[in-house]
Amino acid sequence: MQEPDPLVIEIGELEAIKIATAEFRQVPSTLVGPGDDAAVVSLAGSDVVITTDTMIDGHDFRLELSQPFDLGFKAVATNVSDVAAMGAKPVALVVSLAVTKETRMSWLKEFARGLQAGCDQLAPKAAIVGGDLATADQVLIAVTAHGELDGRKPILRSGAKPGDHIAVCGTLGKAAAGLDLMLHEDQSLARSYPELVDVQLRPMPPMETLLAGLEGITSMLDISDGLSTDAARVSKASSVALHIESAKLFGFAAVLEQAAQSMKSRDGVDRDPMHWVLNGGEDHGFLVTLQPGVSAKGFKVIGEVKEGSGVFLDGAPLQPGGWDSVTG
Amino acid sequence: MQEPDPLVIEIGELEAIKIATAEFRQVPSTLVGPGDDAAVVSLAGSDVVITTDTMIDGHDFRLELSQPFDLGFKAVATNVSDVAAMGAKPVALVVSLAVTKETRMSWLKEFARGLQAGCDQLAPKAAIVGGDLATADQVLIAVTAHGELDGRKPILRSGAKPGDHIAVCGTLGKAAAGLDLMLHEDQSLARSYPELVDVQLRPMPPMETLLAGLEGITSMLDISDGLSTDAARVSKASSVALHIESAKLFGFAAVLEQAAQSMKSRDGVDRDPMHWVLNGGEDHGFLVTLQPGVSAKGFKVIGEVKEGSGVFLDGAPLQPGGWDSVTG
Repeated sequence: MQEPDPLVIEIGELEAIKIATAEFRQVPSTLVGPGDDAAVVSLAGSDVVITTDTMIDGHDFRLELSQPFDLGFKAVATNVSDVAAMGAKPVALVVSLAVTKETRMSWLKEFARGLQAGCDQLAPKAAIVGGDLATADQVLIAVTAHGELDGRKPILRSGAKPGDHIAVCGTLGKAAAGLDLMLHEDQSLARSYPELVDVQLRPMPPMETLLAGLEGITSMLDISDGLSTDAARVSKASSVALHIESAKLFGFAAVLEQAAQSMKSRDGVDRDPMHWVLNGGEDHGFLVTLQPGVSAKGFKVIGEVKEGSGVFLDGAPLQPGGWDSVTG
Repeated sequence: MQEPDPLVIEIGELEAIKIATAEFRQVPSTLVGPGDDAAVVSLAGSDVVITTDTMIDGHDFRLELSQPFDLGFKAVATNVSDVAAMGAKPVALVVSLAVTKETRMSWLKEFARGLQAGCDQLAPKAAIVGGDLATADQVLIAVTAHGELDGRKPILRSGAKPGDHIAVCGTLGKAAAGLDLMLHEDQSLARSYPELVDVQLRPMPPMETLLAGLEGITSMLDISDGLSTDAARVSKASSVALHIESAKLFGFAAVLEQAAQSMKSRDGVDRDPMHWVLNGGEDHGFLVTLQPGVSAKGFKVIGEVKEGSGVFLDGAPLQPGGWDSVTG
């Protein structure tokens, strides 16, 4: 009897990575291996955070909807937010870019300008130090970012403890609402809500909120795939239950209400802004757990960590409704 | 009048990178920026070498010709050889992989096994510490590798001086001959020359030769795109002329002679093994320049550095005949 050999897309990103990385032997200099926002390695005696992320035309963006400047900016944003989510400061990035036979030099230059603008605005102490340029059938961007911990311990997904508060900083749902606006058949809608579209095109992880201090943060991750999905990752890594109160999320939903109404006025479809808040990815805010009694400036408390497992909204199980970069 | 906006593939990899990276602002921690085999950055006070390389199905390999194990192995080999070409020891790699909707888990597992085997055989102190898995229309592999300099200065392409000897270690032309064998209409040919095909599928950069010592090496690079092309890079970066003697390359050509004859016996086409030696890429040996009087174990002297510019074979200009990963 032949063993079943499932498709990778049937397995999903995290499980497939888990199976594949089981092949890898770690060495003493690997302090944190695969599974968190980034790896931590000892390089020449110092702890360094390393993360990598890939964006592919037709899967993670659409060339016809995104300007090259925005793609460069977003490629930096998604990676420096992963570095920051480890409690580290981004210092160096390398960029692998595949262009197509049709890509023009003006596109490449604007893309490079966006990369630099992303560094300037989000990580002014970081530079693009190297990279690789190739041709492919579709445009593909792979960025690897490096960060310094300055002697601190990395903040992992696995540190949440019962009794901790759950808090977020940055926006929630704006990037997803922006994407829906961009994809709407009424093209004028996107122009009416530039702020939401801008978060989708050029996410601004709230790096400065983290710089204010990491004291009392027990776990952290970058909300890239949606609150429900990313909260489930913390729950699993920390072996705890995350209880979120919907009332604490109303503020995030309220600012999306008008966009939902405008879309309904065009197509008659009801949209619940809370769906964007809970399941929308790509805002690249941060989800943290805080020691009880700690109040972190710029963070909004949305719930509490309890014994158990899973993610709950007002006591009811919340299914991960976000993005899996393999199954889509 | 509109400014011309050439296609990236018309410009070529190095020139396009030069134009695009002009946008990038370096920071004090960038010790060596874009343009060499790898970047060197100061991370938490230590000098670290970082390099990245992309392999794309249909461009850099063909899924129907390469086993997933071999692709994983080769992805490690091409990157650790760039780290070694800076005079550094590989310590950590991150791997971005894009699979297609048709990729099976067995493929992914074999690919991961190949990655680990590449580390085991070429860089036993290195580990795959992280990565990213996505889906695309074609399989794509982007590896970023990191190395330690252990307090040494990086060995750049720009250090060659008139009077230095030019030397190589590793194979020359075997990978290109192996590829021609694999692509030959007579499929039995590849099976007759497994050693050549193996160098193409699983290149073995001679890491141990470098470990024996780097004393007296004034410049170094990984021969990935062909001796003629990579020698031109040293010439340009160091502002010197590289004079190569064909007689010193006969040994490399001789071991390819029989394969050329076998192919001719099938298709009547004459093949000059010296063409593979001079222009064939992907062997991932090392091209170095050595201070006069230094004899480096495991290296074969093939010529001399002189005042001037360009690459010469027996006194006649040698045109770069190798691979450009953008124009092909």
